[in-house]
Amino acid sequence: MSTINLQGDPNPWRIGKIICLGRNYVDHIRELNNAIPDRAVIFTKPATSIIGNGEQIRIPGYAKDCHHEAELTVLIGRRTRAVPAAEAMAVVAGYGVAIDLTLRDVQSELKSKGLPWDIAKGFDTACPLSDFIPADRVDDPHKLRIRLRVNDELRQDGNTEQMMRRIPQIIEEISAIFTLEPGDLILTGTPAGVGPVKSGDRVTVEIEQVGRLEVSVA
Amino acid sequence: MSTINLQGDPNPWRIGKIICLGRNYVDHIRELNNAIPDRAVIFTKPATSIIGNGEQIRIPGYAKDCHHEAELTVLIGRRTRAVPAAEAMAVVAGYGVAIDLTLRDVQSELKSKGLPWDIAKGFDTACPLSDFIPADRVDDPHKLRIRLRVNDELRQDGNTEQMMRRIPQIIEEISAIFTLEPGDLILTGTPAGVGPVKSGDRVTVEIEQVGRLEVSVA
Repeated sequence: MSTINLQGDPNPWRIGKIICLGRNYVDHIRELNNAIPDRAVIFTKPATSIIGNGEQIRIPGYAKDCHHEAELTVLIGRRTRAVPAAEAMAVVAGYGVAIDLTLRDVQSELKSKGLPWDIAKGFDTACPLSDFIPADRVDDPHKLRIRLRVNDELRQDGNTEQMMRRIPQIIEEISAIFTLEPGDLILTGTPAGVGPVKSGDRVTVEIEQVGRLEVSVA
Repeated sequence: MSTINLQGDPNPWRIGKIICLGRNYVDHIRELNNAIPDRAVIFTKPATSIIGNGEQIRIPGYAKDCHHEAELTVLIGRRTRAVPAAEAMAVVAGYGVAIDLTLRDVQSELKSKGLPWDIAKGFDTACPLSDFIPADRVDDPHKLRIRLRVNDELRQDGNTEQMMRRIPQIIEEISAIFTLEPGDLILTGTPAGVGPVKSGDRVTVEIEQVGRLEVSVA
């Protein structure tokens, strides 16, 4: 699956690139003992990593420790390059709910060797994704509660007001490096509370006003 | 530009993901003082990083040192997942010439901090790309001379027979992690001789039987 639905739009959107922000919530930076970055930590996932509501996560055989990271996701609606923050919200078509699945043990090894993160972040099923709602349906994207549950246990309970870089600044920084196109996604980082998922787990994310996503682990 | 032409096919191919191999030629590993990897070093570029023959490289303002890396590139023709090496060549639709442009100073800093490579490898114009020729026009993709010139100076002069991982093994390893789709590209690594390009340079790559690519630096 590499398309998503935007509520009210009869056509599915073909997803282009998926750009993700690391270390964008202070509490999450602290829980992993990372430094606060002076420039955005940017990585990507391919569209083939997307699964939809109700589908199954498959943890690759080369990993032992797969972590959930609940994230507010921005759908880009217009081609744009080097847009200033003050004009950036005009390119946002909608919002959705994603899980940035991360093979934490593999990522740790890659980090220690200075190697790229792609096999820890971009494997098939690494990006569970909800349907999207139009941007004008959200009062303020920087005031939304995000909760993630594994089975019935509440693991992440944050609010997008805790983002260090806000959406206009994120779009300004990213679009200065990568041209953004309709169907591109930006995952805006995760609040504290990340942790492992294992076979048989049910993972549920709710972002107020935006939506709900539920997947399970094969 | 995020489409490419395959000789003999009237329709342009829309490019999906671009998966790149690092450290696949021993001489290049040695010149950068890297270790020989026990598993493939995999990173990606977005389709928005592609430019075509005759177009211009724009070196981002956050970099001082942009390196050329000439690479044989594989165009995937069929959707495939976890294909064994013995069957992998059947998914190859064609071959082309690419330059994997790398912001070496930015990459070095990212490596030292254990951060992802995307801003050093995936910026706009980071993937100059030739037209492609059908796979059956190449006698043996593992016996092709690759040369890169900057202006009239020969900088890289290697042969694909020096690849440590060959194309069937590369496709087996990659497709076990990421589903491959028609229009996906695999950049198979660069031989020794990488070095800087600067404003005004003309960069030319020739791969025998495959093609020729020429771009300039803005």
